[in-house]
Amino acid sequence: MNGFAPGSVALVGGGPGHPDLITVRGRQLLLAADVVIVDRLGPRALLDDLAPDVEIIDVGKQPHHHPVPQWRINELLVEHARVGKRVVRLKGGDPFVFGRGGEEAEFCRAAGVPVEVVPGVTSAIAVPSIAGIPVTHRGVAAGFTVLSAHTDIDQVPGGPEHTVILLMGVSGLAATAATLAAGRRGTDCPVAIVEDGYGDGQRVTIGTLGTIAADAAARGVRSPAVVVVGDVVRLADPELEHAPLASHSTLSNREAPQ
Amino acid sequence: MNGFAPGSVALVGGGPGHPDLITVRGRQLLLAADVVIVDRLGPRALLDDLAPDVEIIDVGKQPHHHPVPQWRINELLVEHARVGKRVVRLKGGDPFVFGRGGEEAEFCRAAGVPVEVVPGVTSAIAVPSIAGIPVTHRGVAAGFTVLSAHTDIDQVPGGPEHTVILLMGVSGLAATAATLAAGRRGTDCPVAIVEDGYGDGQRVTIGTLGTIAADAAARGVRSPAVVVVGDVVRLADPELEHAPLASHSTLSNREAPQ
Repeated sequence: MNGFAPGSVALVGGGPGHPDLITVRGRQLLLAADVVIVDRLGPRALLDDLAPDVEIIDVGKQPHHHPVPQWRINELLVEHARVGKRVVRLKGGDPFVFGRGGEEAEFCRAAGVPVEVVPGVTSAIAVPSIAGIPVTHRGVAAGFTVLSAHTDIDQVPGGPEHTVILLMGVSGLAATAATLAAGRRGTDCPVAIVEDGYGDGQRVTIGTLGTIAADAAARGVRSPAVVVVGDVVRLADPELEHAPLASHSTLSNREAPQ
Repeated sequence: MNGFAPGSVALVGGGPGHPDLITVRGRQLLLAADVVIVDRLGPRALLDDLAPDVEIIDVGKQPHHHPVPQWRINELLVEHARVGKRVVRLKGGDPFVFGRGGEEAEFCRAAGVPVEVVPGVTSAIAVPSIAGIPVTHRGVAAGFTVLSAHTDIDQVPGGPEHTVILLMGVSGLAATAATLAAGRRGTDCPVAIVEDGYGDGQRVTIGTLGTIAADAAARGVRSPAVVVVGDVVRLADPELEHAPLASHSTLSNREAPQ
């Protein structure tokens, strides 16, 4: 990996939310940028470290404002690069996991603007780890599937030994859980919901495919949240040390939803 | 996230191979460690930055040596923590993706040793990105499945619009490709193999489910390699700029295997 050439774009995966979970390379490029284009999913605490002369362009949805459409974000990347700026597009998680980074990279390449993609820690794997849940585990799960909301949900392979991770899966959870329960997983298959990843609203809710929709409704579970389905949920840290707002529940001795 | 307490263990995801693709948190803990336990999958270039008094324990397979078994690695973590050391277990990729990090975390917790899990950039997503391949892409792929070798391969959901990523998938590739082709994907479904991730032997081979086994054999494709199956492979950067040893092939104008 080389320096950060003027007139080029870096698509930087900012990781799952905590500012220290960006990569060393991502942070390097961020600190060398002339222009940083950010949305509400990027770890915004990272912006505090930027020099005052760095131009920050916020393309995310803010209260009472519409977000900038994707085609315009693509244009902004190219426009700033073409006048010789070092442009960082800071994204949440990994740029190539539901981040539309692929479209941004394509657009830059088509415009002849050099682009570097810096991978990031994806929330799909990191957020379950907050609750101590490994997405794979010897003798428990040998593979995993990541889906956005409910696409392909009727075709997810295997039984409870194949982990399913749903991003943006809170709305429609009842229907998703019913579909998954109808397969080989059954209603007893464990489910965890981790809300607000590394944020202040972090909370873990554990149930089964049969109970999780009611559990989530009773507790007022909200987006952003990562839903994990499968036997790996049984490995959740019973103390959930890193989830201060979580009920200290276990699968065998679950508190009543509040 | 707090400091690094004496007598505790950090399971650190080292990322996909390049030393700058570890997280800022992972690097912090590594530089603060008294003992670092590493195997051949961790990004070993990171060890060059450690102070001379840091104890490095290599548990990986070296020529003419047997690797240290997992149960003994678990014990080493606890033994060093119990005498008051700050212990880093440095792993390749993410600790919870085929890394047996779940077992190590469980063992430490059962022994009463505090353990922090630091997620990492997984090769499953980052290595395809070297070739410009996003694992998801609007209108192309809305989900992906990651498998180790060939487990569950007969149950992978969907058609070419659902991305399949195989880690450790080079041996047995012919059988795997045939199984996937027998489903809705068909023999024309594109496949990419990226060898040696961020290493010197980085090389990209592109074919289809019908041709990839022969392509790989003809080019002498070897582990470690990540195999990507699905329509997202059509988005591979035709110049494959970051893959100096790759053939400059495209799907529509593929060079004969050499």
